[in-house]
Amino acid sequence: MAPRWKGKGAETKALADPISEIVSQLQSSLVQSNSRGLLSGMSVLLKANAAQTDLLNRACFGRPKVTAEENEQWFQLSMEEAFYLYHSLMCIKIVDHDDCEQSINELWKYMISKKENFPVLYKAYSHLRSKKWVVILGSQYGVHFVAYRHHPALVHSEYAVLALSARNGNANGRLRVWSDFQCTLRLCGSVAKTLLVLNITEYQGGAASPSCLESYGVEERTITRWSPEQCREGKL
Amino acid sequence: MAPRWKGKGAETKALADPISEIVSQLQSSLVQSNSRGLLSGMSVLLKANAAQTDLLNRACFGRPKVTAEENEQWFQLSMEEAFYLYHSLMCIKIVDHDDCEQSINELWKYMISKKENFPVLYKAYSHLRSKKWVVILGSQYGVHFVAYRHHPALVHSEYAVLALSARNGNANGRLRVWSDFQCTLRLCGSVAKTLLVLNITEYQGGAASPSCLESYGVEERTITRWSPEQCREGKL
Repeated sequence: MAPRWKGKGAETKALADPISEIVSQLQSSLVQSNSRGLLSGMSVLLKANAAQTDLLNRACFGRPKVTAEENEQWFQLSMEEAFYLYHSLMCIKIVDHDDCEQSINELWKYMISKKENFPVLYKAYSHLRSKKWVVILGSQYGVHFVAYRHHPALVHSEYAVLALSARNGNANGRLRVWSDFQCTLRLCGSVAKTLLVLNITEYQGGAASPSCLESYGVEERTITRWSPEQCREGKL
Repeated sequence: MAPRWKGKGAETKALADPISEIVSQLQSSLVQSNSRGLLSGMSVLLKANAAQTDLLNRACFGRPKVTAEENEQWFQLSMEEAFYLYHSLMCIKIVDHDDCEQSINELWKYMISKKENFPVLYKAYSHLRSKKWVVILGSQYGVHFVAYRHHPALVHSEYAVLALSARNGNANGRLRVWSDFQCTLRLCGSVAKTLLVLNITEYQGGAASPSCLESYGVEERTITRWSPEQCREGKL
């Protein structure tokens, strides 16, 4: 399926303004300002100056929070987003409510305590982000993430993403029964998205520390309905 | 949600022609003709005369098959439909390819060998049919069944139905994870159906014979999205 751009000129606009460039600028800016995210339940709160606010919005990290302070802009980052800025882009530190900087292992344990399958979800998120996809949470569509070729203002999302763990044979996961498959495919079809299943294979046991992420493999599978007419020999 | 009738006069037409009456006529007619269904993989094939063809179509049992014979009409029944006609309405017998009549226990084992969760699905199917709902397979919507107030030509389906087994804590079942929930609800919402979950509780262990069906309980739950605006005190 070709990307569905939103209106005339959207594709040209997107090509002139690559996401990778926006993310690089955001990375530098956050490093320079020595930014620190604040752990808060299942989110991380990040204060942003005017330039950072613009870059976070353009790169689709977090959601701007409405606050009483006029000159302060806070962003609410999901755990995957915060850990990506922290661990992959290395452009923020993360502190707890006592303003105490968290070590990478403390953070990792915290994330898993809040979301058991964080390692698998984070691997999927960082895999797509590192390929320059814009990735946001997919709860609206009953999937883990949705992936956009560029900013959602310019293009419709192309992929509805499910991250499945190969460990335990995906015991508690999605798509184990036909009716779930059919439900997911029908929904993806009705909103013109392709279902992208990322099978996260773990070669070494356990997820005790974030170093396990390097040993994880990612198998990418897109799933579409089979249309017998399209598969007959020759063109119709 | 009110039933959505298809066009003017559909409701009046439906009221004048109750499903229970059509099913009764079908039952008598099949008994009189000593009808026998033929086991065929995951279906049962049933030959119908002109009057029975009309009644099967109006009551939504099975799908008419196109055959080479001009004066013969065959219907392909799902296992739930066939077992309902056999066990609940007691209006057909079922034979195998050697024309050998199957005992109720043989049939029960056969059904389970083809579909492991047949007892739970059949309990759900027969529960709704006995309440005079028109029930058809829901694979198009990624659920087990869809339920109609009357014939689909007159009214849109109201319920998307999932049958869950309380046994084993619904180990391999649907709705175990949030994303599946969200996916199912979003799909139901977009096709204007309410999600009906039938929790089948089994008081006695095992499903060795169809007599277990009587010990099964059915808990009915409809699931809809919570809209905060609708729940505030007073009217808006």
